[in-house]
Amino acid sequence: MAVGPVTINGSGKSALPLVQQMSKDHDIVLKTFRMLISDLCQQFGGGHPGGAIGMAAIGVALWRYVMRYAPHTPDFFNRDRFILSNGHTCLFQYSFLHLTGYKAMTFDQLKSYHSDRVDALCPGHPEIEHEGIEVTTGPLGQGVANAVGLAMATKNLAAKFNQPGYDVVNNHTWCMIGDACLQEGVGLEAISYAGHLKLNNLTIIYDNNQITCDGSVDLTNTEDINGKMRASGWDVIDVEDGCYDVEGLVRALEQARASTEKPTFINVRTVIGLGSNVAGQAAAHGAAFGAPNVAQMKKENGFNPDEHFVIGETVRKFFEDLPARGESLVQEWKDLVKQYTAQYPELGAEFQRRMSGELPSNWKDLIPASFPEKPTASRASSGLVFNPIAKEIENFMVGTADLSPSVNMIWPGKVDFQHPDLRTTCGINGNYGGRYIHYGVREHAMCAISNGLAAYAPNTFIPITSSFFMFYLYAAPAVRMGALQHLQIIHAATHDSIGMGEDGPTHQPIELAALYRAMPNLLYIRPGDSEETAGAWIAAIEAKKTPTIISTSRHTLPQLKQTSRDSVARGAYVLEEAENAAVTLIGVGAELSFALEVANKLKEKGVVARVVSFPCQRLFEQQSLEYKRSVLQRHRGIPAVVIEPYAPNGWERYADAGVCIKRFGHSLPGKVAYKYFGYDIDTLTEKVHGYLGQVEKDELLKHEFVEL
Amino acid sequence: MAVGPVTINGSGKSALPLVQQMSKDHDIVLKTFRMLISDLCQQFGGGHPGGAIGMAAIGVALWRYVMRYAPHTPDFFNRDRFILSNGHTCLFQYSFLHLTGYKAMTFDQLKSYHSDRVDALCPGHPEIEHEGIEVTTGPLGQGVANAVGLAMATKNLAAKFNQPGYDVVNNHTWCMIGDACLQEGVGLEAISYAGHLKLNNLTIIYDNNQITCDGSVDLTNTEDINGKMRASGWDVIDVEDGCYDVEGLVRALEQARASTEKPTFINVRTVIGLGSNVAGQAAAHGAAFGAPNVAQMKKENGFNPDEHFVIGETVRKFFEDLPARGESLVQEWKDLVKQYTAQYPELGAEFQRRMSGELPSNWKDLIPASFPEKPTASRASSGLVFNPIAKEIENFMVGTADLSPSVNMIWPGKVDFQHPDLRTTCGINGNYGGRYIHYGVREHAMCAISNGLAAYAPNTFIPITSSFFMFYLYAAPAVRMGALQHLQIIHAATHDSIGMGEDGPTHQPIELAALYRAMPNLLYIRPGDSEETAGAWIAAIEAKKTPTIISTSRHTLPQLKQTSRDSVARGAYVLEEAENAAVTLIGVGAELSFALEVANKLKEKGVVARVVSFPCQRLFEQQSLEYKRSVLQRHRGIPAVVIEPYAPNGWERYADAGVCIKRFGHSLPGKVAYKYFGYDIDTLTEKVHGYLGQVEKDELLKHEFVEL
Repeated sequence: MAVGPVTINGSGKSALPLVQQMSKDHDIVLKTFRMLISDLCQQFGGGHPGGAIGMAAIGVALWRYVMRYAPHTPDFFNRDRFILSNGHTCLFQYSFLHLTGYKAMTFDQLKSYHSDRVDALCPGHPEIEHEGIEVTTGPLGQGVANAVGLAMATKNLAAKFNQPGYDVVNNHTWCMIGDACLQEGVGLEAISYAGHLKLNNLTIIYDNNQITCDGSVDLTNTEDINGKMRASGWDVIDVEDGCYDVEGLVRALEQARASTEKPTFINVRTVIGLGSNVAGQAAAHGAAFGAPNVAQMKKENGFNPDEHFVIGETVRKFFEDLPARGESLVQEWKDLVKQYTAQYPELGAEFQRRMSGELPSNWKDLIPASFPEKPTASRASSGLVFNPIAKEIENFMVGTADLSPSVNMIWPGKVDFQHPDLRTTCGINGNYGGRYIHYGVREHAMCAISNGLAAYAPNTFIPITSSFFMFYLYAAPAVRMGALQHLQIIHAATHDSIGMGEDGPTHQPIELAALYRAMPNLLYIRPGDSEETAGAWIAAIEAKKTPTIISTSRHTLPQLKQTSRDSVARGAYVLEEAENAAVTLIGVGAELSFALEVANKLKEKGVVARVVSFPCQRLFEQQSLEYKRSVLQRHRGIPAVVIEPYAPNGWERYADAGVCIKRFGHSLPGKVAYKYFGYDIDTLTEKVHGYLGQVEKDELLKHEFVEL
Repeated sequence: MAVGPVTINGSGKSALPLVQQMSKDHDIVLKTFRMLISDLCQQFGGGHPGGAIGMAAIGVALWRYVMRYAPHTPDFFNRDRFILSNGHTCLFQYSFLHLTGYKAMTFDQLKSYHSDRVDALCPGHPEIEHEGIEVTTGPLGQGVANAVGLAMATKNLAAKFNQPGYDVVNNHTWCMIGDACLQEGVGLEAISYAGHLKLNNLTIIYDNNQITCDGSVDLTNTEDINGKMRASGWDVIDVEDGCYDVEGLVRALEQARASTEKPTFINVRTVIGLGSNVAGQAAAHGAAFGAPNVAQMKKENGFNPDEHFVIGETVRKFFEDLPARGESLVQEWKDLVKQYTAQYPELGAEFQRRMSGELPSNWKDLIPASFPEKPTASRASSGLVFNPIAKEIENFMVGTADLSPSVNMIWPGKVDFQHPDLRTTCGINGNYGGRYIHYGVREHAMCAISNGLAAYAPNTFIPITSSFFMFYLYAAPAVRMGALQHLQIIHAATHDSIGMGEDGPTHQPIELAALYRAMPNLLYIRPGDSEETAGAWIAAIEAKKTPTIISTSRHTLPQLKQTSRDSVARGAYVLEEAENAAVTLIGVGAELSFALEVANKLKEKGVVARVVSFPCQRLFEQQSLEYKRSVLQRHRGIPAVVIEPYAPNGWERYADAGVCIKRFGHSLPGKVAYKYFGYDIDTLTEKVHGYLGQVEKDELLKHEFVEL
């Protein structure tokens, strides 16, 4: 990496003179911090003290000297983002939030760690809901990918909005990691991708303490990590004495911020649990040190062992000007935006709209009012519905895990999100202002990066991901984190059901819907034709605090007269009503038309059937009891039979019987696969008919879900 | 890498003289192979021709010259293992299986690719059930980790059984990959771990065609892959002309087999769809070339465009001696094992037992007949039950994703599976004969590697994995592949339910059980105390073609008098029967005792309750209708209420109401978390009591699952 005078993006001056001026207090600040962490864990006899203690000097370098943020305006739009990917060391962050003056993080709140306070702001891992926390972390590796998404958000906004002399968006993203984030696949995927994108506004700070739960990292990882990072397109900076050398850390962080070409990996050697009698050992990782040990540490550091949670005047003073510094940063930026808006009124207005998280009010009008009547694969319907929106509305960043030809998410004239140099070196038409993202075959990182994009500011970005539905099992931990964090992300999942055919059982998602239907705060929607696909996208775009999976077919589906986009929002609705019905047939998604056809066949046998379309269980659950009963009519004693080539689990709530699948799939052309599993109209009709006869004979069956 | 005269492990002689002798036929063999692949895709207008065509010369080098295998004895124990991690190129493998004389892969069968034959041996991705296929692949990256597991299996058996002059196990593992396997996290985790283990018996062959579905790999990946592999502890060999240079490929493969220190990465430049008019383009990846293009290719290569599936005499002859060569390999090895058994009768007998996949008949006696009565966390029970077995029976390889202190799977005197050098360099007590595996924080690779261990030979290894239950979401794609392949693997998942406490919603597995209860061929078992934990392990060990997740608690549980290890095998059983019961309470796992306590409280209110323990839904499903009715008694009109702090999805089949959770969890100490979510005995009792009153008033509720 080029070495030279450091210019700091967006501030232009180095903190080093200030570091030298304040360095006399570093010793007491670090000691106080370490005693505080020990006390906080000792209080309720649990938690993760070791990492936080080892990282103390890193925190001082970041929060006191390098990071640009505003404790009293936590949502300052252009703030630097800090991600604690090793989320179990959360006391590290909580303590600095307290020391630097975040209002919510009172001393009382700080002491709530591991308490039984239900309203505590110090949960076992950082949570996005709380002031000063950018993303929820805990499951390892996720934070690295989130940080990549946050850095991409900055690049995209900067490319769109910044003008000469007006860097209205230029924040840096700092990601703290431990050894595990370099072992987890999702972290490795994201690292590789960030190197490709040359995200010079992203820095990973590696708390290299060489200790994991099991002991030395050497037990499991002996690779040359710096070499690996360089080969992945990162600059590498080593900091040898990460426990004490605040100045060296500030130099490294400033050098990272000044990087012009690549993301930076700062490899910081630290000692876990420094100063305790388990320093440098796995025992320091996930348990309180014990009262005698904490007392001993205090004695050795010149503290009174009988006093707890001591933060002296010097330490308070050390941090006290940070809220004011933050507010002046905010004011400077506000002034800049004001001038910018005066000079570029259209851009200024658009910038305000993006910051507000509101979509243009006409977004729904961009969806076609009707669709071709010819049979259409719902993955194609998805493109018909959404691509006009993606083209016009720049909140949407549309990504795919290397399935562009399959998922139909390319709009005419789309430009890739890429480093602009790639045009020269590889002839690729893209720049940071582009909004189509080739994630590579990295489904897990795609979804975790999307969480980062969405977390930049509420609804400023609405990330779209796309892949085969089955591969959302690879991405499931990140999809879950999106749901947990109430982030609006739309997952366009194609090739659902066994109808996807020849790719076989590894690609046929028999049991996956059961996961996503059970996952809190997530909509799993299977639309049955283009009209319902429009309804699915509308529901997804309107769900501003909820991610959605829109699950579509590879194969063509008939377009049905009875479907309604507006009804999708109710989760289920009556597609065909009938007086004196003997059965309600529930149809879902790619197999919805089967239910209608079976109803017709049953009519030939003199059996009257109602038909219900059931695209989304969670949306249906949100309806009133009256509505639910009016749709299902089971309370009137009419049995309901669901037809879906998935595991039945969960349908028992809505149906008395089901034609479902409890084994893995089979590699066969789509239509043949349907027939092989009994999903041809004749077999389905016979099964339903047979069931109705069976129930008449055996009353007991009414108490049991019957698999047909 | 040291260059010098190549000695081939286990055969001692190079194939290079033979290559030179046969090289005159390479041209026609390669052309024939490429036309064949084109025809096979053109036949039904689908499939993946490009990769297979690009890899033709690699296949010739492997199957004709380098690999040690026996087409007529496909399960030859000491055969080299070949894994096609880029499974969509399956025609590559199917065609070589046919050409080299595997009996099942007749010409007719080969032509079944993409046909509607239900009994086809050529599904869209390779499947383990079929002759010559080592593991099922398709979801990318999995095969890399499987290959690591297979190589570890060889190392472990070799360390245990080989004696001077008697290398009874010394096979090599060859893993073919495409670009995607270097992007997927699970592949990256496995690569890092294989480098750590210095598995010199493992070779990855990289089909470096620089093309993925979306276009050039440069769109998404521009890292220095050779540098990254070297930094990860691998030797790297480049082959520049991978389309034609069979000799260069053989040299590289032989050098890889001869590696003494590290696994080898062979970076082979190829051209996707070579010779077609879409050569070198993404269009060659996943679609047939079209009839005119195939005809043109044939003309250019001197074939008759009107003839299809042509394999000439020269080509047949080129491969014809391979079955005989294979049989002589088998005979040599049988002779070796015979002599070995004569010289080392005990080892020989044990080797036979391991190959048979049978456990010593006394395995169940190793489980304690009873357990301490004091409250015990079921994760601790798991150790009490299983560690005595793990200690004695060497089929079990026990791994953890860096949670040794939490999962209790260490037996006294355990030795780590590690490269023996690590003792010198890092002071770690391990060798390849060890059976405790520190996987690092790599849950996904842990489970995918375990699939490889299990796939080495049926039940020769029974891999155990361990981690927090929540992190089995990271590993889910690999757990699924184990279930799909009928591999016996036991996943010891701890910290289930909200009772795990302070770690909070990122770690509390509200919805995960819904996935695993729906997943075909998998047992998800939640035992309620030590006795049931014994039952869970017995069920898991007896399920020789099914993986199991044993889901245990972090926190202590009361030991119940009514539980029975034998009953766990039935999935659910009556824990407390009662005449004239008004309700059946279903208790599960860590919350089983709650059901008993609520029953007692209800008695005080004059309400009689039966109690059912329900550790495993799938085992219960396997019981007779009579048994199921006798346990649940819903057919007698007794409502059933399930108590489990998980998403209810699926319980609707067995219960009329449930105290379940449909939101994410909350970071609180375990007991407080239970109370916060209403799982204290008073609240539970009131809910059940209230429900019974409600049902009396509103008959309609009998038709609906009610959330309490």
